[in-house]
Amino acid sequence: MTALPPLAVAMGDPAGVGPEIIAKAWARRREERLTPFFAVGDAKAIAKVWDGPVARIDSPGDAAGLFDEALPILSVECAAEVIPGRPDLAGARCALHSLEMATGLTREGAAGALVTGPVSKAQLYQIGFTHPGQTEFVAERVGVAASATVMMLAGPTLRVVPATTHVALARVPGLLTDKLLVAKALVTARALVRDFGIASPRLAFAGLNPHAGEQGAIGREEIDVIMPAIAALQAEGIDATGPLAADTMFHARARATYDAAICCYHDQALVPLKTLHFDEGVNITLGLPIVRTSPDHGTAFGIAGEDRAEPGAMIAALRLAAEAAQRRADTLVPA
Amino acid sequence: MTALPPLAVAMGDPAGVGPEIIAKAWARRREERLTPFFAVGDAKAIAKVWDGPVARIDSPGDAAGLFDEALPILSVECAAEVIPGRPDLAGARCALHSLEMATGLTREGAAGALVTGPVSKAQLYQIGFTHPGQTEFVAERVGVAASATVMMLAGPTLRVVPATTHVALARVPGLLTDKLLVAKALVTARALVRDFGIASPRLAFAGLNPHAGEQGAIGREEIDVIMPAIAALQAEGIDATGPLAADTMFHARARATYDAAICCYHDQALVPLKTLHFDEGVNITLGLPIVRTSPDHGTAFGIAGEDRAEPGAMIAALRLAAEAAQRRADTLVPA
Repeated sequence: MTALPPLAVAMGDPAGVGPEIIAKAWARRREERLTPFFAVGDAKAIAKVWDGPVARIDSPGDAAGLFDEALPILSVECAAEVIPGRPDLAGARCALHSLEMATGLTREGAAGALVTGPVSKAQLYQIGFTHPGQTEFVAERVGVAASATVMMLAGPTLRVVPATTHVALARVPGLLTDKLLVAKALVTARALVRDFGIASPRLAFAGLNPHAGEQGAIGREEIDVIMPAIAALQAEGIDATGPLAADTMFHARARATYDAAICCYHDQALVPLKTLHFDEGVNITLGLPIVRTSPDHGTAFGIAGEDRAEPGAMIAALRLAAEAAQRRADTLVPA
Repeated sequence: MTALPPLAVAMGDPAGVGPEIIAKAWARRREERLTPFFAVGDAKAIAKVWDGPVARIDSPGDAAGLFDEALPILSVECAAEVIPGRPDLAGARCALHSLEMATGLTREGAAGALVTGPVSKAQLYQIGFTHPGQTEFVAERVGVAASATVMMLAGPTLRVVPATTHVALARVPGLLTDKLLVAKALVTARALVRDFGIASPRLAFAGLNPHAGEQGAIGREEIDVIMPAIAALQAEGIDATGPLAADTMFHARARATYDAAICCYHDQALVPLKTLHFDEGVNITLGLPIVRTSPDHGTAFGIAGEDRAEPGAMIAALRLAAEAAQRRADTLVPA
């Protein structure tokens, strides 16, 4: 097994739950058998919400040796005092600098993978951040068009890919093309092989309409868009099935028949994922030369600093990042 | 407690799993403590898939006394031999006659509630059935406009109401009006009191768009349609909340905060319900003068006659029908 450098964990908004869940994840490093990681962000923000041992480091190379005894932090100082639950623009700048540094360290190979804590998009927009979210920023920094990346949400028993994401539902039918579905599916299939170690991935497509349209009786997108996409994928040797009625494809027996569900829109993918795996969902960006994961929840400013944040999703994000990065390192697939 | 007449169970398509799940439900009458019921349908169709004791009856009044020893059947003979898994038009006619008789017996009070087995709409349409489904037929027979009824899907930990049902997703935004939502919610709230015994029902509304539209940034239906509906309901004293982001409203802790979720479209309601409660979902028609439930699955012709059908949803439908009918009988609320 190739030795993996430690993972870089961008702290996210310092006033959110990011510092707390990173610290709590470190505290459970032994029972969860976590790969060494280091936080990138304001050390004082961690101290505000946690009194465990921290070790300031100057370079990622120092993290592995210290990890067993203290949470390694590559500190990015915020310009103002951090108050949990009270986001401000200084904190947003600090979050952006942390993200930038963690991404750069991962891109150059000093960190084994990138895990990003939750940020406030509203705050980032106010400091001139022009990307829709962290994913697009990371994609640009590692030289990939954001449109070529795929958002996957992964839980213990389900992986979903929404083909369209943060757009109004009324726009979804117009945005759904066979070309889009094929592109999303190809990136997904490749990632299932490379990052998840599934030799022959099985993709299941959800229909757009109730009962997957009932052969055109309740909408034609299944016939006009989804079936051609599936046929094109099958012609390339991809194990693609569907379109399936969305309501009957996410119970336990159905989930066992595929490795990822390709969904038409945000809630079709996210509703089953979060209904089943609310505290352990991981957002993983597919199609990047680096491995990037994120806990699938927000900054939760409302509970920040109250010692109530659950680190489950952060732990799952750390574990998935380590597994995917290790797999890439071992299989010598060029990025 | 007012004595409840036995429940009438329309067998559904005789070539589907209806006969089998009715017989299997009866076989578990003791451990499941089921209220006495009788099947309405072809006795020979039951004999094809089950060798337990049956008792042919001429009137519902005979069912209760026989129920402990045999499955009471009010027989509606099919014109042709029934072959499980091989639907035909004679079977569809038989299913329709069974539905008609069971509905009539419930309407006149000889049966305590109506439970309907799964039918094949495609077969029914071929024999001239002009209603979209059994629900509309039942509504007409009991004197209620189908548009005044509400479809609720109920499982052990979740109840959902889709405000729109079997229409293409592209039509949903146009069909969603505050008037529609208010009408659905009022029928739902009344049924939660009357049929479910919840004194002050809490209704949670799902947003249409991702993240419930993010204050209008991703679609305006939440602001233009759903919020006015909620305000109108609150003005009438209904405990209505939302619009909530659909993806974060169906995990266990979230479900505990409301008694029914009012959803914008079919899959938004049915995906979480069937993901959680695939084998025990009950379809209950709200707004009728009678209680009508149905197991939330289809005819399953593919496994009919193979002794593989699970009676869980039928048992849940029988139990919910009995509970709701008993509650109505005891509370003297006029229908």
